Amino acid sequence: MRLLDACSRVPVDATPVWLMRQAGRYLPEYRAIREKLSFVEMCMRPDIAAEVTLQPLRRFELDAAIIFADILLPLEPMGIGFHFTPEDGPVIEKPIRSARDLEGVHGIDAAADLQYVMDAIRLVRHELGGRAPLIGFSGAPFTLASYIVEGGHSRNYAYVKEFMYDDPVGFGRLMSLISDVVVDYLLAQIAAGAQVVQLFDSWVGWLGPYDYELLVLPHVRYVIDKLKGRGAPVVYFGNGASAMLHLVAKAGSEVIGVDWRIELDRAWEQLDGVAIQGNLDPLTLLGPPKAIEERVADIIRRAGGRPGHIFNLGHGLIPQTPPDNVKYLVDAVHRLSAAPI
Amino acid sequence: MRLLDACSRVPVDATPVWLMRQAGRYLPEYRAIREKLSFVEMCMRPDIAAEVTLQPLRRFELDAAIIFADILLPLEPMGIGFHFTPEDGPVIEKPIRSARDLEGVHGIDAAADLQYVMDAIRLVRHELGGRAPLIGFSGAPFTLASYIVEGGHSRNYAYVKEFMYDDPVGFGRLMSLISDVVVDYLLAQIAAGAQVVQLFDSWVGWLGPYDYELLVLPHVRYVIDKLKGRGAPVVYFGNGASAMLHLVAKAGSEVIGVDWRIELDRAWEQLDGVAIQGNLDPLTLLGPPKAIEERVADIIRRAGGRPGHIFNLGHGLIPQTPPDNVKYLVDAVHRLSAAPI
Repeated sequence: MRLLDACSRVPVDATPVWLMRQAGRYLPEYRAIREKLSFVEMCMRPDIAAEVTLQPLRRFELDAAIIFADILLPLEPMGIGFHFTPEDGPVIEKPIRSARDLEGVHGIDAAADLQYVMDAIRLVRHELGGRAPLIGFSGAPFTLASYIVEGGHSRNYAYVKEFMYDDPVGFGRLMSLISDVVVDYLLAQIAAGAQVVQLFDSWVGWLGPYDYELLVLPHVRYVIDKLKGRGAPVVYFGNGASAMLHLVAKAGSEVIGVDWRIELDRAWEQLDGVAIQGNLDPLTLLGPPKAIEERVADIIRRAGGRPGHIFNLGHGLIPQTPPDNVKYLVDAVHRLSAAPI
Repeated sequence: MRLLDACSRVPVDATPVWLMRQAGRYLPEYRAIREKLSFVEMCMRPDIAAEVTLQPLRRFELDAAIIFADILLPLEPMGIGFHFTPEDGPVIEKPIRSARDLEGVHGIDAAADLQYVMDAIRLVRHELGGRAPLIGFSGAPFTLASYIVEGGHSRNYAYVKEFMYDDPVGFGRLMSLISDVVVDYLLAQIAAGAQVVQLFDSWVGWLGPYDYELLVLPHVRYVIDKLKGRGAPVVYFGNGASAMLHLVAKAGSEVIGVDWRIELDRAWEQLDGVAIQGNLDPLTLLGPPKAIEERVADIIRRAGGRPGHIFNLGHGLIPQTPPDNVKYLVDAVHRLSAAPI
């Protein structure tokens, strides 16, 4: 399958493409379910999670499915309560702002505690047959830590940074605890059938390179080390980290996800021996086909036919994206990459 | 004066330092005034704007003052009404979302229309004597356009991008109109006494390099060209643009402001024949002196004694910053940069 080949930098007939948040609110068939169930209920019902995972693959020639879940799901079994506001904003009930607040927080047994995710993975694998591979995922340690410390979305990540600066050792304890949870969660997903796993470091771009290298990178490297040789390549996506890709690469993943803030060839020049996933601005999909075509062509030209390119957006699809434009994009990636450069 | 020397890459005895939003809510003497006057009233009263501009220089050994103003002030004389919410969030009354909406929007005569800014500049220059130079500023064309199109702060800049993609020519008309306003506004500030001018491209980091180069960079270059040889060096600061500095440099400013998402030496290696301003994460100032010291030392080490470094934050100070930490930072920059490397 194209995606698995590309992860190992084996040449393929056309560039594989999948899209972050390809299962989501931009699809009317998703909204029809979401009207009846809350977001968390959708995650916790394996039949629904599987259905939603497969919806975009019925419409578009995508080269992968990604399991429908939320990156905060492991928090509940860790002893960290949360809920979503009516606008789908997460709220952590007791944010952790010091090492003292860690009392009562603990590791998980993901196969049991998050069995519904594993069941959904098994269902999707069964449904997919061999049509496309299934991607599992988790939040990366800093991104999970930032939710846990900030208490939800944040404007400037002041609480998590204050914690890091005031008590780097205590912050390290939180990060270590989360890292073990992430490893357990992703190994359980691989055991259930995930063929690739992606670590989403959605908020790491709020850190400067100094803090990233000192306080975050060692934990990401720990997670990726534990996943090596377990049968599923790791994609590590650091949103906002395009100006420190040389550090991101030190985490050791087989594939590096790149946001849309860098030219793909400049990204690739800094990286050695890895596959690259990216990197179209998701907002491009609000434009007309001509605008989409130009920008897809630019990325494919910059990939330059090197094996190991996985086409994706540089961040998630937004809800107001027209589905027709997604179809146009997916087809354009295949058409333009199959043609001789 | 150190700052002016550094702009021309003349060696100095210690690295000059000033801080974006150095006049602001973190200072109790600022809040005392703000309690009595609205934010816009403070901007429009030259005596108050001058006072607030000078407040941080009374407390700290800063190497520059920057005139107190808001980047949206030119909108009103352009025919674009706006106000601030009680939380200081800007609201554009009739956002411009297509070329049609441009009707009734026009250029300005900044010296007359924004005379209060020029009066404040003259007052500050008089008060400062030769103690430190005064920086004038404006929003850069894209950043102003993004406010005008989005209608205020934005989550993902969907409206402005949709406009760009749907009607690049119409968007270009908006950008040209704004660019002429910016030129007029900055020339008036220079005439009134601003010794350096900074262009704030606060939201340009939401654009990918393709869109930046095609639709934004030509306008920035136009503005900077018009300011060349007018007696005040230009600092161009693109927030979030650290992974496309080679494009930012094409705008042609004497000084490039860098956010905190890149190591300063890696930034400098990509830039030729310019001075560099940056690049401490402003949130560092929430940490203890030890954390501040380590991160300042890292930046000064990476500057490597090259002439032309202006120390600054990678974005604005936040309101909860302790003033004592600002003092610690300013003194540390001078102490560490004056010492032999």
